[in-house]
Amino acid sequence: MSVKNLKLSLLNDFNCFTLAYGYFKAGLKDKQGCFDLFFRRVPDNGGSAICAGLKTAVDFIKNLSFSDDDIEFLKQNGNFDDDFLNYLKNFKFECDVYAIPEGTPVFAKEPIVKVVGPIIQATLIETALLISINHQTLIATKANRIARAAQGREVVELGVRRAHGADAALNGARAAFIGGCVASGCTLVKSEYDIPIFYSMTHAWVEVFDSEYEAFCAFAKQYPDNCYLLVDTYNTLKSGVKNAIKCFDDILKPLGKRPKGIRIDSGDITYLSKKARKMLDEAGYPDCRIMASNSLDEYIIRDLIIEGAKVDVFGVGERLITSASDPVFGGVYKLTALKDENGEFAPRVNFSDNVGKITLPCNKKTYRLFDEQSGKALADVISLFDEEIDSQKEIELFDPDHTWKRKTVENFIARELFVKVFEKGELVYNLPSTAEIREYCAEQVETIWDEVQRFENPHSYYVDLSENLWNIRNNMFKEFTNLKQI
Amino acid sequence: MSVKNLKLSLLNDFNCFTLAYGYFKAGLKDKQGCFDLFFRRVPDNGGSAICAGLKTAVDFIKNLSFSDDDIEFLKQNGNFDDDFLNYLKNFKFECDVYAIPEGTPVFAKEPIVKVVGPIIQATLIETALLISINHQTLIATKANRIARAAQGREVVELGVRRAHGADAALNGARAAFIGGCVASGCTLVKSEYDIPIFYSMTHAWVEVFDSEYEAFCAFAKQYPDNCYLLVDTYNTLKSGVKNAIKCFDDILKPLGKRPKGIRIDSGDITYLSKKARKMLDEAGYPDCRIMASNSLDEYIIRDLIIEGAKVDVFGVGERLITSASDPVFGGVYKLTALKDENGEFAPRVNFSDNVGKITLPCNKKTYRLFDEQSGKALADVISLFDEEIDSQKEIELFDPDHTWKRKTVENFIARELFVKVFEKGELVYNLPSTAEIREYCAEQVETIWDEVQRFENPHSYYVDLSENLWNIRNNMFKEFTNLKQI
Repeated sequence: MSVKNLKLSLLNDFNCFTLAYGYFKAGLKDKQGCFDLFFRRVPDNGGSAICAGLKTAVDFIKNLSFSDDDIEFLKQNGNFDDDFLNYLKNFKFECDVYAIPEGTPVFAKEPIVKVVGPIIQATLIETALLISINHQTLIATKANRIARAAQGREVVELGVRRAHGADAALNGARAAFIGGCVASGCTLVKSEYDIPIFYSMTHAWVEVFDSEYEAFCAFAKQYPDNCYLLVDTYNTLKSGVKNAIKCFDDILKPLGKRPKGIRIDSGDITYLSKKARKMLDEAGYPDCRIMASNSLDEYIIRDLIIEGAKVDVFGVGERLITSASDPVFGGVYKLTALKDENGEFAPRVNFSDNVGKITLPCNKKTYRLFDEQSGKALADVISLFDEEIDSQKEIELFDPDHTWKRKTVENFIARELFVKVFEKGELVYNLPSTAEIREYCAEQVETIWDEVQRFENPHSYYVDLSENLWNIRNNMFKEFTNLKQI
Repeated sequence: MSVKNLKLSLLNDFNCFTLAYGYFKAGLKDKQGCFDLFFRRVPDNGGSAICAGLKTAVDFIKNLSFSDDDIEFLKQNGNFDDDFLNYLKNFKFECDVYAIPEGTPVFAKEPIVKVVGPIIQATLIETALLISINHQTLIATKANRIARAAQGREVVELGVRRAHGADAALNGARAAFIGGCVASGCTLVKSEYDIPIFYSMTHAWVEVFDSEYEAFCAFAKQYPDNCYLLVDTYNTLKSGVKNAIKCFDDILKPLGKRPKGIRIDSGDITYLSKKARKMLDEAGYPDCRIMASNSLDEYIIRDLIIEGAKVDVFGVGERLITSASDPVFGGVYKLTALKDENGEFAPRVNFSDNVGKITLPCNKKTYRLFDEQSGKALADVISLFDEEIDSQKEIELFDPDHTWKRKTVENFIARELFVKVFEKGELVYNLPSTAEIREYCAEQVETIWDEVQRFENPHSYYVDLSENLWNIRNNMFKEFTNLKQI
């Protein structure tokens, strides 16, 4: 792969450089702004997403600098002047960055990341933020759906060959683990993120030997402690499972070892797994697990379980690593406020010709309200950045689009969702390990009602605005509709 | 992004290491085999795909080596012995690799890449081959569909922020260019592959200034030669296009410059583009192009053109860079033959419990037959690697599944599709530039009948087998069905 020596400083859309230059030349070098990264809908029409990708974005920001080669490239291609190129050469990141921690269930329209600082700098990290968060949130969300469908059975990520390049394989596997997978097939994932490795065998292995039985025995001798046999190369029941049992008897038993499992990668999984289970049980291998693979996703896994398939482990490949049923996570990054001469943030909004594309102005933060008794999340409330929600008092929530829909909430705990990641350009957030994020994700998913997380017609979770924020936005709408031309 | 310093030698599925080790320990270190990379169906139910990704795979293979850190990692995690680790430490690639050149239209079931050499080595390049070819063939195929839908209008790739990571953005843009896009928004794509850059502005730019008009003027002053204005931040017709025209009059006209275009990113593109076209024409800017973006794909573009939308350039993002309607390219890599003691290739086959997953045995090659008169491709014929097809003689083709369907072809030119890429591990293929591949692709697409390339119910192109190959496969089937257990 050519990604090895990528100059990722140039990953940006060229727009980001030309606009940064434009700001620079327009005397806006030090102009401060506030940008939100948010999304408008959950993939697969789900009720919530699992946010991920922050680590990768942090790595980019931490290391963002422009080499002499980069500067030369920009000079050749961008018609930028020396002042600007010098600015890039001496680039020092100075923004504050806030983010919802990876593994948190998140909802449409609320900011996932907020960047406050010079608009030039916020522009130069835009692409990296979007690419990381969009990609990994997509895969973590899909993995969580699949893990939930498996109802406690293990899900292993096996999609590397169908990922959209090396980076998609690696960071997709990371996101899949955060969302609930237990292991990945890809070596790099272990080496980079210390995520457990899964391995079994391939059809080629079986074909290389003169018979399936010989292939199984060679594997069992080599890996007696991880004896996972692929049984569908010729015929699952007539050949594969029979040979597997014979191999367990002949090779593992004398060594005092138990088999790990068999893997079925084609055919009717429900039928074959039931038959195979019976054969294994009768042969004295009730502890030999059955793994199924072959274009699985949350819907097929749900159906297999309903049909009584005897599957202990699901190997999920292409449909997870690409989020095949809905492969786009549509996070966007929008200016929400600009600092005026008095150092105050003035709200900014993009009205657009689609109502759905209208942005939410102001420097903001989000509270999640948890029911004191059940621990379940009741609603998220987006407020101005300096508003406090007092858990001691009751609060009236209202639907920002249908303001007559109101609800009073009490006995709740309000938790701010943002953590501060960079302060004036310095990394101040202690990034958790991938295993810690995975555990945190599982805990947080428990706080979301099942009704919000079901696959079909999920209940809409409340993402409301504080009265102050709603008023500011509403006044901007009124003002806008009075203008003919801006 | 963390891809910057990736040890891509470890990109492999861990399976590939454990199997390589298994072969090594089973005395098969020097065993020679033949592997095919092929796919079973074209995404989006299309009739043909555009193959791409070879360059990235070649880069991987050329640079494949195992550092001390890699060896240490494998030692810690794999239970491999010193002999094998030494083999990896001194790894020298020795295989022959054949491939269909990038940009060629390809069809299901025919080999795209063939690897001949030590099975251990063929196993250690499997993941990289699949990940590169699967990803880039997917995107090149999608881009070609979109470019064909645009009927000569330009298509610009703008998907970086929705790509599945940095690698997907970069190499996806490369594949999109091969398939027919004219430029990409991503800076890195220019710097790595010398693909033209497109840039315009973002909504943030418009919001930073006190008015849309001021924002446009600032941009026009800065980029008078690339004045592309984004007109939908507030209201496309009432504000955006009016302000754009005023800006062209006030800023560009005095400089003697013409505008490049306007971009519409929301709302009803057909309606808005017709109105905008009229406004621009009446204002004396018939040469100002109209660009449309906003979740476009081949179907929406086809409809826009049917509806008479006045769009000159399509900016295509998420639905291209993820191939959103079908984001999986299912290439697989299968053993097809093993060298026996006499140095002869003995066929190998994976029968599987799904008929569709049965593989095609033997060391093979593929001919494409072109009609001498029209230049159109008539059929592909997969033969044994040492068979010759003589263009001087007529040839009888037959459907490999329905052998009574036969057709005699004459007056054709037979061209072998494979080029030799590596010979005994040495790169012997002169990789064309991305621009050359793009041009070759456009030429080759012309050789495929429109009927095969239409979006709905495309005509099935003939991918036939030589009589010899068919006989070998058929005999293996017969032999297999006589066996109860393998």
